[in-house]
Amino acid sequence: VGQVIGQQVVRPDGRTEGPGPWPAAAAAEGQVELLYEYGPGLVPGGEMTGGMWRYRDLLPLEPGPIAYPLPVGGTPLLALPGPRRESGLPGLYLKDETRGPTGSNKDRATALVLEHALRAGARTVSCASTGNVAVSLAVGAAAAGLEAVVFVPADVSPGKLVPMLAAGARVLRVREGYEAAFRLSRAAAAAFGWLDRNTGVNPVTVEAKKTVALEIFEQLGRRVPDVVVAPVGDGPTLCAVAKGFRELVLCGASPRTPRLVGVQAEGCQPLRRAFESGQPLRPEAPETVADGIAVSAPVSAGAVLRDVRESGGGFVAVSDEAMLRAIAVLARGGVLAEPAGAAAFAALAPARVRGLVGAGETVVALVTGTGLKTPELLRPVGEAPEIPADLGAVVQALGR
Amino acid sequence: VGQVIGQQVVRPDGRTEGPGPWPAAAAAEGQVELLYEYGPGLVPGGEMTGGMWRYRDLLPLEPGPIAYPLPVGGTPLLALPGPRRESGLPGLYLKDETRGPTGSNKDRATALVLEHALRAGARTVSCASTGNVAVSLAVGAAAAGLEAVVFVPADVSPGKLVPMLAAGARVLRVREGYEAAFRLSRAAAAAFGWLDRNTGVNPVTVEAKKTVALEIFEQLGRRVPDVVVAPVGDGPTLCAVAKGFRELVLCGASPRTPRLVGVQAEGCQPLRRAFESGQPLRPEAPETVADGIAVSAPVSAGAVLRDVRESGGGFVAVSDEAMLRAIAVLARGGVLAEPAGAAAFAALAPARVRGLVGAGETVVALVTGTGLKTPELLRPVGEAPEIPADLGAVVQALGR
Repeated sequence: VGQVIGQQVVRPDGRTEGPGPWPAAAAAEGQVELLYEYGPGLVPGGEMTGGMWRYRDLLPLEPGPIAYPLPVGGTPLLALPGPRRESGLPGLYLKDETRGPTGSNKDRATALVLEHALRAGARTVSCASTGNVAVSLAVGAAAAGLEAVVFVPADVSPGKLVPMLAAGARVLRVREGYEAAFRLSRAAAAAFGWLDRNTGVNPVTVEAKKTVALEIFEQLGRRVPDVVVAPVGDGPTLCAVAKGFRELVLCGASPRTPRLVGVQAEGCQPLRRAFESGQPLRPEAPETVADGIAVSAPVSAGAVLRDVRESGGGFVAVSDEAMLRAIAVLARGGVLAEPAGAAAFAALAPARVRGLVGAGETVVALVTGTGLKTPELLRPVGEAPEIPADLGAVVQALGR
Repeated sequence: VGQVIGQQVVRPDGRTEGPGPWPAAAAAEGQVELLYEYGPGLVPGGEMTGGMWRYRDLLPLEPGPIAYPLPVGGTPLLALPGPRRESGLPGLYLKDETRGPTGSNKDRATALVLEHALRAGARTVSCASTGNVAVSLAVGAAAAGLEAVVFVPADVSPGKLVPMLAAGARVLRVREGYEAAFRLSRAAAAAFGWLDRNTGVNPVTVEAKKTVALEIFEQLGRRVPDVVVAPVGDGPTLCAVAKGFRELVLCGASPRTPRLVGVQAEGCQPLRRAFESGQPLRPEAPETVADGIAVSAPVSAGAVLRDVRESGGGFVAVSDEAMLRAIAVLARGGVLAEPAGAAAFAALAPARVRGLVGAGETVVALVTGTGLKTPELLRPVGEAPEIPADLGAVVQALGR
């Protein structure tokens, strides 16, 4: 398949097994990582066109035209004066993943999974999700003419539930929460023969999401930043970034990889605690407004802990209040984000205090999800007074 | 300025005055259109990169780097099986303008206006808006470090009010509605020396929005479609499309322009009535869910009536129910749209009946605004039952 020459499995305890052949006979416990015959020819050059598919030599994808109809990837790397000033980081860039077809970085993984589904003649694709993955799969499957079955926690936010239902997905709200929904979706996919989009299970999702790192490299003029800061729930977003940069080194395109900072919510930080204590991961009941990273027992724990350690980085936990403040700063700086989407920006200040980010460094913070699905968390600045159509009323309202 | 060699003014009655020099001493009543020294060198070729700025030789823009920090344009032209099947138009494409930084085609106009503002050293930019323009200007100004003052109708939808306030714009809700807000914003801009973004007043907005036509041309393999269908409120979106295609002919890049179909809401269709009766335009109090095209006395009436007539096209009015159905069909087909954003798709069936669109033609419908700001209008398909984490419950819920 494509350029893939094998796979390895990163166990929950961080040990790597393999390499072995891909696809494997049975899905192993842990995170499957695909391996390529790396070389300089795999990293494209020239004008950045084609979105995510420009990296197809580094994706598990047979030759042939792309059938999936929604263009994905090629999101902007923003240099915004407001967020730079507020963070005190003149070398800060925001990778704006809110520009995907459903406003989150999940759209990359959905695209590659559904491209596989279309080529394989699959009819039904399923996943578990805290929200954004389900919206992405629902809309993507609708575009591709496939059926989506999504398993979400019973308390999924209305701003995410409505679009997935409008796109015609079958939505099951699982009473026991996200981890139960994840296990149930895996069992259901196996029982009914659905294509399982679940990250961790399906290595294709990490492959797709690593393209964000390849884009950052090209957008910075073919160099890697000093630090990349990313929110971490289940972990694949960060693992994918790590794999993308690692492969740039393996291809000879970059001499080094960036330091990685994983961001969790204070109300759900099993990875940060495991990383700092060196103890095995202990699940935590989530208590946070950031549904996108409210994952008590992360699927990719072994891989994400390894990736952060090997990068020389670390973990930071941020409070709900800090994420809401970050949403406000980003909105006043030109980007509408949800809590998990603003978490990386919220983490910049504590990361600086802890020495994980330096003031003079080139820092990329991922903004992973749009604030338009969580308008209740966008903080108005000031009021919107009702006035008569009169210039005097304008003067009075504006205090000029 | 740029390649601009002059301007003409399209009066409300459709007469054209000029050409004369640009910028003119005073803003004329009617729509100002900029003229260029047209030639084949102005239409770019090769890979489509750079978003809207790739057309800078056809934009009023002095040489020099772009200062505005939000990339805009380069939106997808979608060939989606569901909408093609539902409309019975195998040659249908959707130009997905929901992929702008704030999810609407207004982001193009905002970008060029703010690029001018940054170069001119302006501090405050203002506009009137039914919603999307204000969100776009608020977020864009925030990104550019400028102040935005926006005048909206008092009953502006919450899904649009919240983001503009979160981005830090000064928002004034004008009791008497949109037209009063428009006049008040013009007066206020003149009184306080703000840069006036108002379309019709500011020819730069049409210049920016015409890039959508240039992109369609390139995305179709350097040919123009048979028909373009676009929602019409004030009119500049359609005028801009017309100007873009006209300039492709003037540059020698295309032998012809497409037929244009303007879409209004049944509850506010002054342009359709004026077009079909040949009588002067009579304002109508808007009664429609499609706030984006709820404009009783369109600013660009003269220009839009002329453009549709000269293209050999026509106007169609669609009911609120038809727009809501179109939102549902588009969502189940892979695009989340608001009512005005779905209006062009809703108009396809009546346009076919009236002979404005042929079954075998290449048809482009503009999807001008995202449905994520109007979730209350996204129709769920089916329910989202709460179930225990049990495979039997899945079987029962899905009826399998």
